[in-house]
Amino acid sequence: SGSSTKSSGSKLWGGRFVGDTDPIMEKFNASIAYDKRMWDADIRGSKAYAKALEKAKLVTAEEKDNILHGMDQIHDEWAKGVFEVKPGDEDIHTANERRLKELIGEPAGKLHTGRSRNDQVVTDMRLWLRDAISILKGNSLQLITTMVERAAVEIDVLFPGYTHMQRAQPIRWSHWILSHAVALSRDVEQLQEINRRVNVLPLGSGAIAGTPFNIDREMLRQELAFDDISINSMDATGQRDFIAEFLFWASLCLTHLSKMAEDLMLYSTKEFSFLTLSDAYSTGSSLMPQKKNADSLELIRSKAGRVFGREDKEAMFDCFDTVHAVLQVTTGVVSTLKVRDINPSVMEAALSPDMLATDLAYYLVRKGVPFRDAHGISGKAVFLAESKSIPLNQLTVEDLRTASPLFSSDVSAVWDYSSSVEQYSAPGGTAKSSVAAQVEYMRTWLKKQVQ
Amino acid sequence: SGSSTKSSGSKLWGGRFVGDTDPIMEKFNASIAYDKRMWDADIRGSKAYAKALEKAKLVTAEEKDNILHGMDQIHDEWAKGVFEVKPGDEDIHTANERRLKELIGEPAGKLHTGRSRNDQVVTDMRLWLRDAISILKGNSLQLITTMVERAAVEIDVLFPGYTHMQRAQPIRWSHWILSHAVALSRDVEQLQEINRRVNVLPLGSGAIAGTPFNIDREMLRQELAFDDISINSMDATGQRDFIAEFLFWASLCLTHLSKMAEDLMLYSTKEFSFLTLSDAYSTGSSLMPQKKNADSLELIRSKAGRVFGREDKEAMFDCFDTVHAVLQVTTGVVSTLKVRDINPSVMEAALSPDMLATDLAYYLVRKGVPFRDAHGISGKAVFLAESKSIPLNQLTVEDLRTASPLFSSDVSAVWDYSSSVEQYSAPGGTAKSSVAAQVEYMRTWLKKQVQ
Amino acid sequence: SGSSTKSSGSKLWGGRFVGDTDPIMEKFNASIAYDKRMWDADIRGSKAYAKALEKAKLVTAEEKDNILHGMDQIHDEWAKGVFEVKPGDEDIHTANERRLKELIGEPAGKLHTGRSRNDQVVTDMRLWLRDAISILKGNSLQLITTMVERAAVEIDVLFPGYTHMQRAQPIRWSHWILSHAVALSRDVEQLQEINRRVNVLPLGSGAIAGTPFNIDREMLRQELAFDDISINSMDATGQRDFIAEFLFWASLCLTHLSKMAEDLMLYSTKEFSFLTLSDAYSTGSSLMPQKKNADSLELIRSKAGRVFGREDKEAMFDCFDTVHAVLQVTTGVVSTLKVRDINPSVMEAALSPDMLATDLAYYLVRKGVPFRDAHGISGKAVFLAESKSIPLNQLTVEDLRTASPLFSSDVSAVWDYSSSVEQYSAPGGTAKSSVAAQVEYMRTWLKKQVQ
Amino acid sequence: SGSSTKSSGSKLWGGRFVGDTDPIMEKFNASIAYDKRMWDADIRGSKAYAKALEKAKLVTAEEKDNILHGMDQIHDEWAKGVFEVKPGDEDIHTANERRLKELIGEPAGKLHTGRSRNDQVVTDMRLWLRDAISILKGNSLQLITTMVERAAVEIDVLFPGYTHMQRAQPIRWSHWILSHAVALSRDVEQLQEINRRVNVLPLGSGAIAGTPFNIDREMLRQELAFDDISINSMDATGQRDFIAEFLFWASLCLTHLSKMAEDLMLYSTKEFSFLTLSDAYSTGSSLMPQKKNADSLELIRSKAGRVFGREDKEAMFDCFDTVHAVLQVTTGVVSTLKVRDINPSVMEAALSPDMLATDLAYYLVRKGVPFRDAHGISGKAVFLAESKSIPLNQLTVEDLRTASPLFSSDVSAVWDYSSSVEQYSAPGGTAKSSVAAQVEYMRTWLKKQVQ
Repeated sequence: SGSSTKSSGSKLWGGRFVGDTDPIMEKFNASIAYDKRMWDADIRGSKAYAKALEKAKLVTAEEKDNILHGMDQIHDEWAKGVFEVKPGDEDIHTANERRLKELIGEPAGKLHTGRSRNDQVVTDMRLWLRDAISILKGNSLQLITTMVERAAVEIDVLFPGYTHMQRAQPIRWSHWILSHAVALSRDVEQLQEINRRVNVLPLGSGAIAGTPFNIDREMLRQELAFDDISINSMDATGQRDFIAEFLFWASLCLTHLSKMAEDLMLYSTKEFSFLTLSDAYSTGSSLMPQKKNADSLELIRSKAGRVFGREDKEAMFDCFDTVHAVLQVTTGVVSTLKVRDINPSVMEAALSPDMLATDLAYYLVRKGVPFRDAHGISGKAVFLAESKSIPLNQLTVEDLRTASPLFSSDVSAVWDYSSSVEQYSAPGGTAKSSVAAQVEYMRTWLKKQVQ
Repeated sequence: SGSSTKSSGSKLWGGRFVGDTDPIMEKFNASIAYDKRMWDADIRGSKAYAKALEKAKLVTAEEKDNILHGMDQIHDEWAKGVFEVKPGDEDIHTANERRLKELIGEPAGKLHTGRSRNDQVVTDMRLWLRDAISILKGNSLQLITTMVERAAVEIDVLFPGYTHMQRAQPIRWSHWILSHAVALSRDVEQLQEINRRVNVLPLGSGAIAGTPFNIDREMLRQELAFDDISINSMDATGQRDFIAEFLFWASLCLTHLSKMAEDLMLYSTKEFSFLTLSDAYSTGSSLMPQKKNADSLELIRSKAGRVFGREDKEAMFDCFDTVHAVLQVTTGVVSTLKVRDINPSVMEAALSPDMLATDLAYYLVRKGVPFRDAHGISGKAVFLAESKSIPLNQLTVEDLRTASPLFSSDVSAVWDYSSSVEQYSAPGGTAKSSVAAQVEYMRTWLKKQVQ
Repeated sequence: SGSSTKSSGSKLWGGRFVGDTDPIMEKFNASIAYDKRMWDADIRGSKAYAKALEKAKLVTAEEKDNILHGMDQIHDEWAKGVFEVKPGDEDIHTANERRLKELIGEPAGKLHTGRSRNDQVVTDMRLWLRDAISILKGNSLQLITTMVERAAVEIDVLFPGYTHMQRAQPIRWSHWILSHAVALSRDVEQLQEINRRVNVLPLGSGAIAGTPFNIDREMLRQELAFDDISINSMDATGQRDFIAEFLFWASLCLTHLSKMAEDLMLYSTKEFSFLTLSDAYSTGSSLMPQKKNADSLELIRSKAGRVFGREDKEAMFDCFDTVHAVLQVTTGVVSTLKVRDINPSVMEAALSPDMLATDLAYYLVRKGVPFRDAHGISGKAVFLAESKSIPLNQLTVEDLRTASPLFSSDVSAVWDYSSSVEQYSAPGGTAKSSVAAQVEYMRTWLKKQVQ
Repeated sequence: SGSSTKSSGSKLWGGRFVGDTDPIMEKFNASIAYDKRMWDADIRGSKAYAKALEKAKLVTAEEKDNILHGMDQIHDEWAKGVFEVKPGDEDIHTANERRLKELIGEPAGKLHTGRSRNDQVVTDMRLWLRDAISILKGNSLQLITTMVERAAVEIDVLFPGYTHMQRAQPIRWSHWILSHAVALSRDVEQLQEINRRVNVLPLGSGAIAGTPFNIDREMLRQELAFDDISINSMDATGQRDFIAEFLFWASLCLTHLSKMAEDLMLYSTKEFSFLTLSDAYSTGSSLMPQKKNADSLELIRSKAGRVFGREDKEAMFDCFDTVHAVLQVTTGVVSTLKVRDINPSVMEAALSPDMLATDLAYYLVRKGVPFRDAHGISGKAVFLAESKSIPLNQLTVEDLRTASPLFSSDVSAVWDYSSSVEQYSAPGGTAKSSVAAQVEYMRTWLKKQVQ
């Protein structure tokens, strides 16, 4: 043991000086810089616990009142921005308890009876996240509402639907908007499911074994408006699944917004020229005077790549801030962007007859040709038009007949973009009736969310 | 244009030879090697679609019957393992359609009328994943059942609860088991929520615009036993959120199993010696004859690190296989491991009086000392025992009184592990009654899952 | 102890039957399905080890010869595709040793003397990866060569440089090509650095303690052409850093290829119309006859998202296969794509006068205006042109003078795209001389790589 | 166009109010909160650029002097902590230029001539990261030195080497220390390779096309002490590979520290009891008075899971801070932890005869038995000892002979842990001479690093 002391306490191996407490370690370990955001949750949790302590006869009614009163004072200090964080306040829980002791003296020391730090931290996180989820739900609904109402107003605008970045079929602009709104509505539903797992009371779990006093967990649940109480104390204090679920949710939601932003960036290029972004969401270049960059869209798009790391408090806060900002900026962008020259629009001008090659095949299907063959015949027509360097709809009936004798003069009806989209009237399709039905479906869904 | 042809078609820049089709590209693009696992889903989807085509008068009753009959034959070939994949069968959909053509001739070409590959792929994926989820739910329930029943049988075994790998408080071994079972039960619930979003029919969405024929999507939904139909055709064919959700679910479930495996590995070390793993789940060393490695636990633990990449079919299959194997191996491990020398067990021998330091503080709390002070007094007692190199419970009442005058001879009642755990009788705690209640809760929950 | 046996061996808790070896566990643990790709590396390693054993007098010269001869036979079997993997061959090492025993009898049992499985596995992985790196280096150099020579040939093509997807400044098409070639050249350099850490001999490290026999590690190093021998036996058998480095390298390289593919996809859209992809790298649509999708580019782009998981053999193989295919397909795509209508090209037609707004500011800078002010004045001119709905270069000198009196008739020289790009003649710029210098630099660099 | 204005400028679709600039967007876009850490790099870059502008005759000597003098003043303000960030200072570059304008007036507006924000940002990042890398290299070397010197002092301590958490072979404690030191030395070497790719000058690349003025890039390189200048201007301003490389490096380094921390946590448990952590790196529990948690080790371990996201400035700073703290705390932990009761130590007491089963097999190998057979015979001896419930070394020669007739009385020499480790004298092994050689190797390597 003597040699041990010698070999380690002294600095034979050249380590840097280490006093009673290593200040780097202390800083490394402190979380007050970010977890102070839970000040309100921490106060609510402690007030509820003080009531449970009284019921368990671990504090008197007077002590409880002192604690509640002190906590209210601390609440005021935080709310007014005058709460002073002191050295040694390593986290929000320590800070609030330290302050309580200053304000009310000894009874403050009773507040931790049977409650562990683990217990308290996870209760505060759940309270905070529940509020955060409520805010994000609101942001999401506002964005969806904006999209749905825009889709309702601009339902008559047609434009090219793309797959693999190549023009595919004529669709309604509103059909595109709604495809993104529908994805966001799934996010809202998933967020509510997560909330059910967030909104479970862990308090009363102690460190791992539970609480040895008559702490009434059901009373705590009611005080703090949780839906359920946790089933097993080890699981309750140790698991952070609800954070992992929230981080995943955020990734998926940001991916949806990112995909929409990616399309909007494309539609805003000079080459596409479908849309004009509001100046409020654009920035210039420090070098090139003519530039108007869709920076808001780039930022939205870039956030999807953001990986929210470990399941801790810091990630939870970072994640909330990101999604909170992205949802609001997206709402701003979507509500202010202009469809260029609405009638006749650049969008419709971008439709081209080759996008009706599927319709040409369907023309044959309706005359009894198996689709696989009709697809081949239409493909030949496309090739013929390309060879002649003319648009597909300028092929004569004679030209078409070299591909199939079934073509006759009624084929001219195929070359109408409006008729084309009107075919897709089955549920989910791009016909006006079908898109209008989607608008109605979403309006009804939205009403249900805010009840 | 002439110069263009010259500069690119020829090989001025030294690219490797490229013929009509680049075979590397073809292989790169093919998915049949893994998506053939969806052969049954693909057949079911096509059979349902054939019926919808008939209803829409796009095929005759006879053609439909031919298609159904052909598909049944293909089913048999796959089921018997005699289906022959041919060059050019780039995916399962192409393979099945190619075979149908061979078997029934022309009507096969009508099967794709109004249906796009996107449509078909995503329908098949949803059908396949629905079945996979059902299997994984079964595996999970079997594991949870094993754990709950083991917890019921071994409820009397006490052992050290650890936090930060240091001995914390005495708890029941069953309390530890249930903490993991509870986490897995959340996984099952989440899996069911995901299933609701998986079980939505996309068929009838075409490429992006919808279907232009009278395809009865409601009839398709019923035929294929989906709960809902998709709302927007672009979203329906383009989104893979349900895969992303499934991959995340798998990550979380594997993390739970990994944490359990990590604890079991520790408890199986020579130094802990709490558990003996069955030979069926151990392996030896090619070099060291004495080694018995907990390889099964290492494998289980390692799978949590596995990141399931992009939201595609390959990831979906890989993910299913991994979770499927891990759940079964874990069930095997948990059902066969032995608690060493159950009475008195090595586990109980590992309990040490310092783990009752919290109880010592609570002794003082019950005499009216604020917990913060009681914690400090108990800490002093721990220090005193360490200074004297004796266990905490060997301090005399006189020794203890140097820390607080409130100690008296009744303090001896503190040094009883069984009494200690029995204090934690609040819901979720480690008292026998509380753990038994958890067992009952889980048994009831399990019954509900299989209804 | 009795109760222990009872409670676990039997199936009180409903676990599935577990025999002597759980077949799921066995399958879970086996790696032969993928690690058989290391058959050649394993044979080379064992042959070298046999020689070291002879030198250490642990096998006789005759035994060594028998082993070498047996190994050569096994080599032939693998090379001819007739090696038969048998049940129980859990990995390639077991399979080869089992076969050796069948072929030469007892001396096979001496081959493992002082060698652990860990030792052998990691030696094989390093041998295999060294070869794989060499192949990928070759693929990369071929792609870079293709790009550099294409840049040399098409150096006169101008087109819009984009930032944030908006037209920024006129640049050379070759400048764009070289920007990607330069990134790939960094990848090659990094690959070579990684190879130095791959090419270190671990053999002779035993399980963890080292080898207790006179195994000549320096001789092994020479036999197997490693650059160095490992320094510490525990580190040698335990670390997989070289795999992690390789996986990271692959991610970065795929990201580079992905970014290039993303640009090419954009340039291939109908709206941009800069490029035409070869049919060999395009695919059609099963529904839409007119579609020609840039599937090869999509596949290339998508691989960047692929996350290569844990640092194991499986990831190493998967990663190699992916990068190997992507590099080759990219080479094919780049060498066959056509710039549309090279003279005058669609690319040059896409240049627009507003892209010279920076040049307009520089015109003023050259007359002594601070850049920040010149930027403002040019911005005003852009606004004026937009208000008048005319291109920037159609503003009269009088118009321009409303923004600054320094404009005079020589401003007309600004509106020349060729002159504009020729200004950027500093190293790295887009002037013809500068781009030609980059081509030369890369040619020289390429020559050095293959020496 | 009128209808477009109406439909989007007004708020038919319920978007929130949007004025000239959306404040959320502004905040979303601002980076000053974190990129102000580059204030010094930004000033250095601008000073060098001012000199290049003078050489290119774009500013006069007097203007240059004004700029340099102004920049020095700004430097003082930052250094003294009195620089005032104002609203509108969206990033450090804007802030410094705004302040320069306040201090010196018009010439400030010339500083941006031919320089883009992209140019400037990436130059600053490279300057900052170069310094950061230098600091981390220093931290790493200090840690490695501590480890190597500790290994030198404690070279005589033996303890169990573990694989799969099970006791494997006796090794030296110093052998374990050095296995981690060697991994860290690879990190230092890789960091230096990365630094070569970081230390490349991008300045003079403009936005994408390069610089149109006679900016002497070689002079800039010398002024700012870069090793090279970038080859292609588009690549120079667009790529962030050096950040990706740095983030990956950090992940790998943290993984090494994490693995070491994981072992140390295990060795510090009550059950292992090999080590005692200094109080300076331990924390207590708010609930359990006896707890002494290895929080520093947990923190170190946990950082490995931290994923450093997108390749941006924020990630770069976060990553540096984390690794910087972890390296220092690890140095503190390693230099202060005590090996318990060094002579005879708890470590040596943990060695058990079954760990010599490999030696028992080698005993037979030395008598001519093929290793595979010797392994089997030794395994039988292990089984026999277990059946008799005695340690392996208590088997009599007669007992051993039931497994093989080759055992004789000289087998007793096997049961000596010191002799066992001394066998491993090949390079990299755990014999004293070999470990001492590793210490010398590392000392020499360390000296080379600081030259």
